[in-house]
Amino acid sequence: MRFDTYLASRTSRMGASAIREILKVVSAPGMVSLAGGIPAKESFPMDIMEELFSRVIRRYGSNAFQYDLTEGFPPLREALVPFLAERGIQAEAKQILVTTGSQGVLDGVAKILVSPGEGIAVEAPTYLGAIQAFNPYEPRYVRLETDEEGVVPESLDEVLATQRVKFVYLVPTFQNPTGKTLSLPRRKRVAEIIQKRNALLVEDDPYSMLRYRGEPLPPIYTFAPENTLYISTLSKVFAPGLRIGFFLAPPPLDRWLVLAKQGVDLHTSTLNQALAAEYISGGYLAKQVPRIVSLYAPRQQAMLSAMEKYFPSSFTWTKPEGGMFIWAEGPKDLDLEQVYYQAIERKVAYVPGKFFFTELGEGISTMRLNFTCSDAPTLEKAIRTLGEVLAEVAAPNRKVHAL
Amino acid sequence: MRFDTYLASRTSRMGASAIREILKVVSAPGMVSLAGGIPAKESFPMDIMEELFSRVIRRYGSNAFQYDLTEGFPPLREALVPFLAERGIQAEAKQILVTTGSQGVLDGVAKILVSPGEGIAVEAPTYLGAIQAFNPYEPRYVRLETDEEGVVPESLDEVLATQRVKFVYLVPTFQNPTGKTLSLPRRKRVAEIIQKRNALLVEDDPYSMLRYRGEPLPPIYTFAPENTLYISTLSKVFAPGLRIGFFLAPPPLDRWLVLAKQGVDLHTSTLNQALAAEYISGGYLAKQVPRIVSLYAPRQQAMLSAMEKYFPSSFTWTKPEGGMFIWAEGPKDLDLEQVYYQAIERKVAYVPGKFFFTELGEGISTMRLNFTCSDAPTLEKAIRTLGEVLAEVAAPNRKVHAL
Repeated sequence: MRFDTYLASRTSRMGASAIREILKVVSAPGMVSLAGGIPAKESFPMDIMEELFSRVIRRYGSNAFQYDLTEGFPPLREALVPFLAERGIQAEAKQILVTTGSQGVLDGVAKILVSPGEGIAVEAPTYLGAIQAFNPYEPRYVRLETDEEGVVPESLDEVLATQRVKFVYLVPTFQNPTGKTLSLPRRKRVAEIIQKRNALLVEDDPYSMLRYRGEPLPPIYTFAPENTLYISTLSKVFAPGLRIGFFLAPPPLDRWLVLAKQGVDLHTSTLNQALAAEYISGGYLAKQVPRIVSLYAPRQQAMLSAMEKYFPSSFTWTKPEGGMFIWAEGPKDLDLEQVYYQAIERKVAYVPGKFFFTELGEGISTMRLNFTCSDAPTLEKAIRTLGEVLAEVAAPNRKVHAL
Repeated sequence: MRFDTYLASRTSRMGASAIREILKVVSAPGMVSLAGGIPAKESFPMDIMEELFSRVIRRYGSNAFQYDLTEGFPPLREALVPFLAERGIQAEAKQILVTTGSQGVLDGVAKILVSPGEGIAVEAPTYLGAIQAFNPYEPRYVRLETDEEGVVPESLDEVLATQRVKFVYLVPTFQNPTGKTLSLPRRKRVAEIIQKRNALLVEDDPYSMLRYRGEPLPPIYTFAPENTLYISTLSKVFAPGLRIGFFLAPPPLDRWLVLAKQGVDLHTSTLNQALAAEYISGGYLAKQVPRIVSLYAPRQQAMLSAMEKYFPSSFTWTKPEGGMFIWAEGPKDLDLEQVYYQAIERKVAYVPGKFFFTELGEGISTMRLNFTCSDAPTLEKAIRTLGEVLAEVAAPNRKVHAL
């Protein structure tokens, strides 16, 4: 029998992830994918995994395999206290809550706060995984202006002055998809606005440890802890397959988020939390992060240099001080989704930028490029090929080539 | 600032789990808890965990730590094919989908199917974790009659004939909380009714491998695969802390459930799925299940014998052939939630049965007893104590004892 007619109204909002659909295509042999959003497998501390596992068995025994508290495995929450302190966040272990990837709390916050039709303010463009988490709760998206430095504070202020939104979702550091980072003055300004307007900021911070140049910036949370749900993850500095995220939330949202999580998965894998606890408290993370930075920094440099060399002059792009992405923009009206299929034929994949916008028709001429998953020579070659494809389509008299 | 006024309407339906609240109280030193719903830690195959981990590293390397498909880790899906065949379920690997505990798909099915106010038919009493998963989607619960053999088919038929429900939720084998098992004729009758009424059955099957006596029964799924979402888990036969559940769903529900899961956690821990794949395909599970049965069977026997000896004659209880629970019922109007606090003072905890009913006022004189987490002498002693408490409160002239 068919159950199509059984679906809830919210289900129509759950589309397939465009990125994931595109990733399926790009696993063809010989393809160089600049489309991914994933860490390099060489960034995982494979050399210490068996050691970590032995430590877990020795220290926690069967407790690492038993049901555990929804709030999180206590040794991990303890280990995250000094970890967060290094970012300027003073928190007690009991305030730190663990989730199954940061995705888990993105689902949770929309679940507890958003009734159908209510507003969530997001950057244009914004992180696609967040949109996928929010969509089933049928929100209305309110667009925040961004410029080369990220979200424009005046736009935020105006939105909060004129519309009721349940929360503001930002990725202030090395944003996905643009790589943009909010400056210190803007962070303070955003914190002020959020406080002044009695609003809730959801600050998603997965990439801040992947900094290749420049000085670390404090999370917005540090300026407005009572108005900020701060989310981070170990997916980019340990291993994403372990699905370990964590967050700090102002009361009573913390309690509601725990209850929502309880209904969804009871708790996050105890074993993986125990591995994460040992990874941090055993000093392994502190050694691994510089290794990851040394792996990614030359890759980013290779991509930026190659773009300088091979991209048409009609293109502009971001030069982030860290993260995993570069965002490029071509001449207005150039449809980079169409171009995608030409690039695929030349064995180079990227993500057309339009998928990161919540409004149709935006971002047609943008693209997201990932540099973490290939070595520098491969990236150089892929960007050269992509530059050739773009030169063809972006040339003012490009119809000539059909002759 | 306070965010109470920010909560979505659905959030009022997310209460704290009574079981979990009670579990917090019962961790006091000296307490014997018959309140838990968890496997004994001695049931975990701790002797082979390091071996399993080494196999995972050898076989899958860094892939076991990378992002993976939402559908599940392919080697685990392959390993589950013969595993399910032993239950009489013929399925291809591509039909088998993995979730973060079976809790994950309970959340998913309500998410994709239930709009506020729509019906879910459940046994009275039913599994509390399912109610917690369903509640945020604001369903209306429709009560199915049960007797000593489990759900009454005529009650199911009448409900489906007179009301529109989005799905029927049953735990047909060693049910939580009652331990009851639906007989083969009733399974066939339920399958017929579900098919006749074009309804969807959600068959939750966590306990069927924990059989201490009698013959295995085929899942209802085998009689009505096109109308059944079949859910199971490795939590009771491997380790619950790994959070590995799996399911089979009729199309197109399978696809929608994958999309819903993608928004919630992207995918289930790759490492834990790899461990589970090796546990099953390496033949470890086949050896471990008889060990678990040998551990639990005498515990159940000890509890049943002690109840025979020490419980007042005004009590009746189930004698399940497997699972983790015994369900007892006292004289009508005896409030076993009140009695709970007297039992706690004598250092014995259980779960008052009323928490497993969706309608207020039901199950006042019932209780759920778990026998998996203590050895036989401890259970015997705890049941003797509990029998004394019950004898006091259940005696017809019980006011005398206050003199």
